[in-house]
Amino acid sequence: MTAPEVFTLPAIAAFHAAGGSPVAVAEAALARIEAWADPALFLARVPPEAVRARAAALAAEGPRGRALYGVPFVVKDNIDVAGLPTTAACPAFAYSPAEDAPAVARLLAAGAVLLGKTNLDQFATGLNGTRSPHGTPRNPVAPGCIPGGSSSGSATAVAAGIAGFSLGTDTAGSGRVPAMANNIVGLKPSLGLVPTQGVVPACRSLDCVSVFALTVEDAATVLGVIAGPSPEDRYARPAPAGWQARPAPQPAWRLAASLPEHLVFDSPEDAALYEAALARAALGGSVTRVDLAPFLAIARRLYDGAWVAERTAALRGMVEDRPEALHPVTRGILAAGLEKRTIEAWEDFHAAAEARRLARALFAAADILVLPTAPGLPDLATLTAEPVAANSRLGTYTNFVNICDLSALAVPAGFRANGRPAGVTLVGPAFAEARLAGLGAMLHAAAGVALGASTAPVPPPPGPPPLAPDELPLLAIG
Amino acid sequence: MTAPEVFTLPAIAAFHAAGGSPVAVAEAALARIEAWADPALFLARVPPEAVRARAAALAAEGPRGRALYGVPFVVKDNIDVAGLPTTAACPAFAYSPAEDAPAVARLLAAGAVLLGKTNLDQFATGLNGTRSPHGTPRNPVAPGCIPGGSSSGSATAVAAGIAGFSLGTDTAGSGRVPAMANNIVGLKPSLGLVPTQGVVPACRSLDCVSVFALTVEDAATVLGVIAGPSPEDRYARPAPAGWQARPAPQPAWRLAASLPEHLVFDSPEDAALYEAALARAALGGSVTRVDLAPFLAIARRLYDGAWVAERTAALRGMVEDRPEALHPVTRGILAAGLEKRTIEAWEDFHAAAEARRLARALFAAADILVLPTAPGLPDLATLTAEPVAANSRLGTYTNFVNICDLSALAVPAGFRANGRPAGVTLVGPAFAEARLAGLGAMLHAAAGVALGASTAPVPPPPGPPPLAPDELPLLAIG
Repeated sequence: MTAPEVFTLPAIAAFHAAGGSPVAVAEAALARIEAWADPALFLARVPPEAVRARAAALAAEGPRGRALYGVPFVVKDNIDVAGLPTTAACPAFAYSPAEDAPAVARLLAAGAVLLGKTNLDQFATGLNGTRSPHGTPRNPVAPGCIPGGSSSGSATAVAAGIAGFSLGTDTAGSGRVPAMANNIVGLKPSLGLVPTQGVVPACRSLDCVSVFALTVEDAATVLGVIAGPSPEDRYARPAPAGWQARPAPQPAWRLAASLPEHLVFDSPEDAALYEAALARAALGGSVTRVDLAPFLAIARRLYDGAWVAERTAALRGMVEDRPEALHPVTRGILAAGLEKRTIEAWEDFHAAAEARRLARALFAAADILVLPTAPGLPDLATLTAEPVAANSRLGTYTNFVNICDLSALAVPAGFRANGRPAGVTLVGPAFAEARLAGLGAMLHAAAGVALGASTAPVPPPPGPPPLAPDELPLLAIG
Repeated sequence: MTAPEVFTLPAIAAFHAAGGSPVAVAEAALARIEAWADPALFLARVPPEAVRARAAALAAEGPRGRALYGVPFVVKDNIDVAGLPTTAACPAFAYSPAEDAPAVARLLAAGAVLLGKTNLDQFATGLNGTRSPHGTPRNPVAPGCIPGGSSSGSATAVAAGIAGFSLGTDTAGSGRVPAMANNIVGLKPSLGLVPTQGVVPACRSLDCVSVFALTVEDAATVLGVIAGPSPEDRYARPAPAGWQARPAPQPAWRLAASLPEHLVFDSPEDAALYEAALARAALGGSVTRVDLAPFLAIARRLYDGAWVAERTAALRGMVEDRPEALHPVTRGILAAGLEKRTIEAWEDFHAAAEARRLARALFAAADILVLPTAPGLPDLATLTAEPVAANSRLGTYTNFVNICDLSALAVPAGFRANGRPAGVTLVGPAFAEARLAGLGAMLHAAAGVALGASTAPVPPPPGPPPLAPDELPLLAIG
């Protein structure tokens, strides 16, 4: 039997159910790595013979009900995997972790097959994918464009069909912008939902482990595997009961969108793709235009204020003692954090508290905020010309989300005529992942796109289950 | 009819129910102010004729079901009352607020009668009551001893029988240490439960409005009046449903106490009073000794690290431009905040996150942590000799509570032979006020003390209501 052409979870599960072996899937993944031949994709690979041995062991065991049985995946190289170095794309920083990060351990326990560790903007500082001493991963969807970052390799590996899903991280948009750039799905969970133990800190108080997948359903399934507190994780938070229960498609979502005057785009086409997605979303509800200005303002503090010093604090030894070992752009950003004063940091924190208050008010009146994922997708030359300004622009709609304690789901929204993908991001309060997935699956299916770089169609969103008269309209995911 | 000798809420309510007038209660309060004659107690008084007019207006209206009908109270002078200046015990800082703080507005709406604004350690920075340019309020229970701070006047006014209750604030223990010093009850609510709008910030992210009262029941009633989010308050948090429902007295509270090696006391008598209170508490459950070291460690960061800069940030104009207008001890503390660096602040914040994690683990295994309120009550001469060291010692068991997002209730625990009162503080997770009140009322009644400076006995704790077989063991308070 031949492994599935496209590595969605249902396709791989169906292959195995029909008697296919995880070894065949693993061989296909290894062959695709060779065929894709991007020297900037992996920072460390699991040796092919070890991948084969893992798949063979799984085949011998059988599925045993495991959600990710035989699914190939990759992990951003700022997340620990025992047996592989963690470098965060800074060779001088490398260390050899003794243990898997909890998210990785849970994926392996669910039967997934690790292929390797992927490239990133050094120390997860950047949204574009070019800030790595190992080169820039190739964008399989829009050649010549950035792959997005910082989770560059994790996104391109999924879009290129190598991995069924991947782990990224997201502090300011690193799990969302690359999803847009690669025409895939990026799920940025609530703060504290997935343990961040074993993750190289960027802003430790804001970091999230994120998921890239070809479909919304697959991303939700992976989140269901990796979510849940780890007793040792100081930033873990218990999720409210029922957080995974997906509401049935609403007859009338209360949607929010930005006032037009706060929306910026790279091109009229990008604007039109966003408005078209919003119009499709609005078929399921009403849209209220809200004032995004306070959120855009708090976003600016992420790189000007207290939180850049949080990055510096996490890497103080590197910044103070070995600055020459840092990527020049990263070095400039981190060095600025050394001089920040705490009395000014408190202005940032009190402003963040006010932004969270405004976000609570927004989500008391709305279910989902629908935004562009980014103003547009720049090409590589633009990032070379303006490495900081073009990067900042990419974070316009993503930077405020973690500071405001929100959840987010980036889904494809179509292509410009020049082949550059666009995306929309659905934003909700903390622990609203299931709600976002409900609308996200619908928007993805309606976007007129294929999956990643493939030609496979987006599956239809799951319909509401037939309800008994006394049954609650809830559907478990994950 | 003569006003009640002791201003508990039930005594005042009974007086009114028997036909007594709020005017008689107000006259008694005014007479007690004159008799107590402490020039350091009030920083601003409501003119006696205005107090009488307010009481007369209430008398004309009748109770209308108001919980605090005709009850005299005082407010710490870092909380806004329209019509009176807010000074925080710094004349140069004075301003005239246009509105009552929400907590004050709610008390007035509940029928309480304001007598004035009370003295405090300047800018609520201190736990002893001597850091005020207006002198130190007299301790009515232990002459020659400090009144405790920073809510010095609010505590002495209740102990002296002038006010039925009072508002304080609590960032590091300012709502608990003065309760111990004055043989009364101090309730430090959960962060965000009572709005802090209209409160002069100390550490804005940690500040709480607190309640002093003669009994646990009275403190719980007042909290019920002032609790609840204010839409404009960025640090407000919604309380979980049922937070006011008091559990029936438990057959087996799971109590925690410190390992003996982390307990420090001023005298063997202070230690014996604590152990006796703990033994009484243990009659209702089991006691596990826990490691308090991580909590004592995070407490030290409150005045050495990021949070002192939070105080400075809130008063930056005073510290940078008019330092001579500050109390010398306060000036020294606040000036240290100017130089703090944000990269070091993040070490404090990550340590705080770890302390909160440890607190969650503690309260997963225990219902209530029973601690001394302070190592002991020093006299005024000790504070004069060691204004910073003796103050720090007072915060041993209180400083960590707000950083760890906990609730606390300070109750009297008896007297040393030399007449100095001791106290125990019950600590619980956020929104555990009702649970703390359940044990607190029992401990107070068993402590062998009178109410404040009076000779009136502590009322017995409310018994469990007779339960129908299918009824939940819950009793509403407040």
